[in-house]
Amino acid sequence: MRPGAALQAREPAFSLPLRVYYQDTDAGGVVYHSRYLDFLERARYEWLREAGFGLRKLAEELKVIFVVRSLSIEFRRPARLDDLLHVTVRLDQVGRSRVPVAQEVKRDHEVLAQARVELACVDVLTLKPASLPSELRRAIIG
Amino acid sequence: MRPGAALQAREPAFSLPLRVYYQDTDAGGVVYHSRYLDFLERARYEWLREAGFGLRKLAEELKVIFVVRSLSIEFRRPARLDDLLHVTVRLDQVGRSRVPVAQEVKRDHEVLAQARVELACVDVLTLKPASLPSELRRAIIG
Amino acid sequence: MRPGAALQAREPAFSLPLRVYYQDTDAGGVVYHSRYLDFLERARYEWLREAGFGLRKLAEELKVIFVVRSLSIEFRRPARLDDLLHVTVRLDQVGRSRVPVAQEVKRDHEVLAQARVELACVDVLTLKPASLPSELRRAIIG
Amino acid sequence: MRPGAALQAREPAFSLPLRVYYQDTDAGGVVYHSRYLDFLERARYEWLREAGFGLRKLAEELKVIFVVRSLSIEFRRPARLDDLLHVTVRLDQVGRSRVPVAQEVKRDHEVLAQARVELACVDVLTLKPASLPSELRRAIIG
Repeated sequence: MRPGAALQAREPAFSLPLRVYYQDTDAGGVVYHSRYLDFLERARYEWLREAGFGLRKLAEELKVIFVVRSLSIEFRRPARLDDLLHVTVRLDQVGRSRVPVAQEVKRDHEVLAQARVELACVDVLTLKPASLPSELRRAIIG
Repeated sequence: MRPGAALQAREPAFSLPLRVYYQDTDAGGVVYHSRYLDFLERARYEWLREAGFGLRKLAEELKVIFVVRSLSIEFRRPARLDDLLHVTVRLDQVGRSRVPVAQEVKRDHEVLAQARVELACVDVLTLKPASLPSELRRAIIG
Repeated sequence: MRPGAALQAREPAFSLPLRVYYQDTDAGGVVYHSRYLDFLERARYEWLREAGFGLRKLAEELKVIFVVRSLSIEFRRPARLDDLLHVTVRLDQVGRSRVPVAQEVKRDHEVLAQARVELACVDVLTLKPASLPSELRRAIIG
Repeated sequence: MRPGAALQAREPAFSLPLRVYYQDTDAGGVVYHSRYLDFLERARYEWLREAGFGLRKLAEELKVIFVVRSLSIEFRRPARLDDLLHVTVRLDQVGRSRVPVAQEVKRDHEVLAQARVELACVDVLTLKPASLPSELRRAIIG
């Protein structure tokens, strides 16, 4: 069985709808490539918010923030002005402080971009790796 | 009677909710000033969409786009990470091709920024001023 | 005599060259309007750096940062991909903490955008208005 | 011999200096992660320009543009406000239309981020893969 298969069955992805505006496009007529990373971030934070953890709660109460350690992204088809996109978040194997997520940017059922983002939970002040707070761990792993 | 008063009574503003993410902030800990212009644009296009005129319909069917001729903005209080903002749009006296709008960025009832944006309706190919299409004019002036 | 005339003669503007990349443009084929504000900021900070005041020195040694209180900008002609622009900074009448500047975005001798930006010098921690440090005042007013 | 070794010896990297401004940072006090992709793009286009191929020449004369097919990036250390960065470009094995590049974002001799970007040369109108024009091929492969 492929490693992703069980995960996919078990863990339905969170999905955020987004509209494409001029500010997201470039003179090539399509969404500028780095803008996808911004879309991915918005989806991750709405996913955390839905789990009960807004950005301010994370930073002020739990004293952690998430930083992106690495990411890889494949751009399959261009998104265009006025498109309604859906950006998904699916959690992979969470470590002590590492939180890898698989994300997709879709238009209807078409996958426009596919990304894997490696997040690290870090102390809000020192930016050093911090254990994922247990209440947050429970909320997102379920 | 102040010129704005009648308008305000007659024409309730369109309002778009927006969440502030890391991508909107800067190292000063607040929303970066040029980002407000992006917020204003999102609200203007959602206002047009609600009136039945998405960006693609404007460009492909009516052959017009809107460009910003000038704008002035006053930043009163900083917006911060995780804030839920509301961005309003209120139409001012529309000309043949000029569409001036008054916009605000609010957090609850507090006005964080106040802007006046002078839009021009231009031909999608030549970028020359174009008469506001009459169906669009009826839809937004009401 | 016009108020600006003496100033213009006395105070040659600082000018920063900038190249336009895809990241600066939108699907209309021209530079996206809020991007001009980013260009203006880059010119202001290079102007301060040339006067001996880098961003870190301002924040860490002098304990101040500049925030934008208000701005108005007029977009005259579009800048395009690959254009080499020059962004100027000209100081206006400096107050205790207010630093108004006039800025232009030019392509050769053509003015593409003209802006007036009202900066305030604020305490780096409290974000309350702070007197412009005297050494900085001397350096920029000359 | 490591695959990259011969390349590294043969092909010194192009390097673009860049200053970090507020617009590049986020409320975490460091450069926002998607902004690195913008830095990488600026370096790639200055590298092409140095080879004699500005963006307009590519699009208007050679009728091609480059699109990003995929990229992976590792963020090792944060860049901060006011940092002077150097962004490098090193060409990997060029295909018919694929142009893979290895890029780094450095502060002095410290590598802050390391990326591999897979570019595709595409027709400016159809956005379909196009053979890398031979004069461009000669100029960048040398």
